Amino acid sequence: MSTADLLRDLVTANRVLAHEGVVDAYGHISVRHPERSDRFFLSGSRSPELVTLDDIIEYDLDCNPIDLRGRTQYTERPIHGAIYRKRPDVISVVHNHAYEVIPFTVAQSIKLKPLLHTAAGIGATIPVWDIRDSFGDTSLMVTTAAHGDDLADRLGANRVVLMRGHGAAVTGISIQNVVHTSVYLKINAQLQTEALRLGGEVVYLSEGEIAEMQRSAPGHARAWEYWARRAGIVG
Amino acid sequence: MSTADLLRDLVTANRVLAHEGVVDAYGHISVRHPERSDRFFLSGSRSPELVTLDDIIEYDLDCNPIDLRGRTQYTERPIHGAIYRKRPDVISVVHNHAYEVIPFTVAQSIKLKPLLHTAAGIGATIPVWDIRDSFGDTSLMVTTAAHGDDLADRLGANRVVLMRGHGAAVTGISIQNVVHTSVYLKINAQLQTEALRLGGEVVYLSEGEIAEMQRSAPGHARAWEYWARRAGIVG
Amino acid sequence: MSTADLLRDLVTANRVLAHEGVVDAYGHISVRHPERSDRFFLSGSRSPELVTLDDIIEYDLDCNPIDLRGRTQYTERPIHGAIYRKRPDVISVVHNHAYEVIPFTVAQSIKLKPLLHTAAGIGATIPVWDIRDSFGDTSLMVTTAAHGDDLADRLGANRVVLMRGHGAAVTGISIQNVVHTSVYLKINAQLQTEALRLGGEVVYLSEGEIAEMQRSAPGHARAWEYWARRAGIVG
Amino acid sequence: MSTADLLRDLVTANRVLAHEGVVDAYGHISVRHPERSDRFFLSGSRSPELVTLDDIIEYDLDCNPIDLRGRTQYTERPIHGAIYRKRPDVISVVHNHAYEVIPFTVAQSIKLKPLLHTAAGIGATIPVWDIRDSFGDTSLMVTTAAHGDDLADRLGANRVVLMRGHGAAVTGISIQNVVHTSVYLKINAQLQTEALRLGGEVVYLSEGEIAEMQRSAPGHARAWEYWARRAGIVG
Repeated sequence: MSTADLLRDLVTANRVLAHEGVVDAYGHISVRHPERSDRFFLSGSRSPELVTLDDIIEYDLDCNPIDLRGRTQYTERPIHGAIYRKRPDVISVVHNHAYEVIPFTVAQSIKLKPLLHTAAGIGATIPVWDIRDSFGDTSLMVTTAAHGDDLADRLGANRVVLMRGHGAAVTGISIQNVVHTSVYLKINAQLQTEALRLGGEVVYLSEGEIAEMQRSAPGHARAWEYWARRAGIVG
Repeated sequence: MSTADLLRDLVTANRVLAHEGVVDAYGHISVRHPERSDRFFLSGSRSPELVTLDDIIEYDLDCNPIDLRGRTQYTERPIHGAIYRKRPDVISVVHNHAYEVIPFTVAQSIKLKPLLHTAAGIGATIPVWDIRDSFGDTSLMVTTAAHGDDLADRLGANRVVLMRGHGAAVTGISIQNVVHTSVYLKINAQLQTEALRLGGEVVYLSEGEIAEMQRSAPGHARAWEYWARRAGIVG
Repeated sequence: MSTADLLRDLVTANRVLAHEGVVDAYGHISVRHPERSDRFFLSGSRSPELVTLDDIIEYDLDCNPIDLRGRTQYTERPIHGAIYRKRPDVISVVHNHAYEVIPFTVAQSIKLKPLLHTAAGIGATIPVWDIRDSFGDTSLMVTTAAHGDDLADRLGANRVVLMRGHGAAVTGISIQNVVHTSVYLKINAQLQTEALRLGGEVVYLSEGEIAEMQRSAPGHARAWEYWARRAGIVG
Repeated sequence: MSTADLLRDLVTANRVLAHEGVVDAYGHISVRHPERSDRFFLSGSRSPELVTLDDIIEYDLDCNPIDLRGRTQYTERPIHGAIYRKRPDVISVVHNHAYEVIPFTVAQSIKLKPLLHTAAGIGATIPVWDIRDSFGDTSLMVTTAAHGDDLADRLGANRVVLMRGHGAAVTGISIQNVVHTSVYLKINAQLQTEALRLGGEVVYLSEGEIAEMQRSAPGHARAWEYWARRAGIVG
């Protein structure tokens, strides 16, 4: 895939995440440069639903823009830079504040875990990172490399890390993959909340089932076509 | 009704199920061939909201396509084939992952039961099938005839069977009937969840009431006209 | 107001009730004839969102159509006839299955009561009618004068009566008034459900407050203009 | 900013509040006159989604219109006048009945508190005002200067005051600021409700974190652009 096609997918992904309620005024998605693993692409500061090709900025892994051309930047780009530095396997990163997920970041007696087969991509273990543990009272924003590194450490080898009082960072091996994981992270959070309230034991996916599903991972192309059409992208 | 008209209804049903939130990127509806009870029609692999007449594939009851013409197939078509083989009375089948229903597939201390008069079509007894019981760790997908037969056995003579961590299979005597049952399965699940949370005793429909309603079954034509119009189908 | 203008408002009310989620495929609204108190107007059998002037049928209070012209009728028109017979003060009646209200019809340990000032119109006392008490196992449908009379008796002098496993009948002194009461019945049910779940004591409106609000009743014109515009009616 | 531009923002704010579900048929937003601190602007009586420039009325702080030109007035304008009189730092006021917030006004065992970083603007302390405490049985409407003064006293130096069985009054240092606070008051109420239901301890923002966030307050321009576009305002 050419870089131009990849950037078009990045714009589509911004709109899909907005349309599916994963992001609102805030949140962002980046993708690693396909030809230079020490670079990534991320929109300038704009709500995802409004992002166009002209908003996309190229960054090095220290989050310095290659050619800013006067555009405003997201203050939380260190989330992306830190994860790309520590996780060479990660190709795309979403940061979001999906409303269904937030309660699991503050009600720490209960862990978010996959129970729906299409949500297996979120992984068996989802750690929660609290910026207060290392940095005390802050604005909760990930604005420095130190914040980003601390978050990436807590993510470890998992696919998703929750951020207390704030949201989540989601990783994937492609734009389509990280969008799928982000949408079903949100849906699984909603379903787990409802299932817990019905009372009694809840059956979660087993480790073996998660491994099977991550291996087969059917239907990403079908979902991508569907979400793009719903977001008004044709073709 | 001609086969051509039936297939147009099948396309409409796909859009209705999407518009009413019964299916999202995933899920499907099939109908038995009106002239050959050993055949059925099902879309190729596409999200229901996007299905058109060109996507409809004819299958034998072992789920072999009669004339594939290069189209991609749903991997879970054995759900449909198995039910049509075991249940000659069934004319149409929906497989869906409606979010309101999923919690009842994993919180097994509570049974989904009809409490709303328009939901009587879901029947008094709704079994839950867990693929793990017979097949151990899988991707939860119904991809083989053995999976399908096991599911159809659990369905038995009922109208609906829930699938743990996955969704439901719904049966009916026509496309309109199975769509109505699927929509009200979702609504009844939502209302039962809310009623249980209000506390105290919940009054469910009695067996006698369910029998009365299934006999009268008013309003299917009215609902079908309404849902089709909402889904953008005119005529 | 001329009868022609009143019928236009009746059509608008059908669309408003659909757009605000008070009714779905089912439910209906009637209005008493302004020149003949022994007649009322009600649509033929069609989902409220699709109702047009041509669908409106004139009825006597025994629910006989004056001039049917081949149109299909709602089977539950006895709800309307019975209330107009027993309650000369009632000018308009809504029958609906709003999802937020249904749980209060089956979880009989908790009573629906107004807590929001704009919901005072639902009244301090809202009885629940169970068709099973007088008629045993039925389809729950109000299809005979005997059913209707029993329901109207349970309504008594109140504004709203809930129907177990079915919905509600709402009365008002005008189309605008009954629509307002129906919308806020639904909203109050939703808010009461949420408030109860927060735990502790819930503060409801006092009898004195309800009386004050029913006397002042501000904002019906503002709400009607707003809802009509949202439902696509301009004028 | 010219007064003309400010009034255009006031119209935009009305539409944004409606589109984001902060207000429905009821609720209003005002702004202090930029050149005369003893005046403010507020729409005539109309649902916020329908407000246009022609609806905007200039008031003195006793809520007398400067030039009414036959327009109908909101009966609850004393909410705005009283707050502008007592709080010279306040530039804009929203009164709303957001559904997510109402339960916290009647379930007084639980306090609404910020847990999401973008909701820090609602402040650490949110008092609840009950009109019944000072005035006994009323219509709950704030229709006199005495009502308004009592409410403003309860607000004190805080940013938000809840009104029992009614809604909230929200204050800000600009139109954009008070809209942001109003939207996230609603979202925080929803998330707090969900987090409490998951059980166990909920982690709220600390006083230090709230202070940090109120100091940095990033992203208001981004959110305003997004909300305005969603509400159909281009430019």
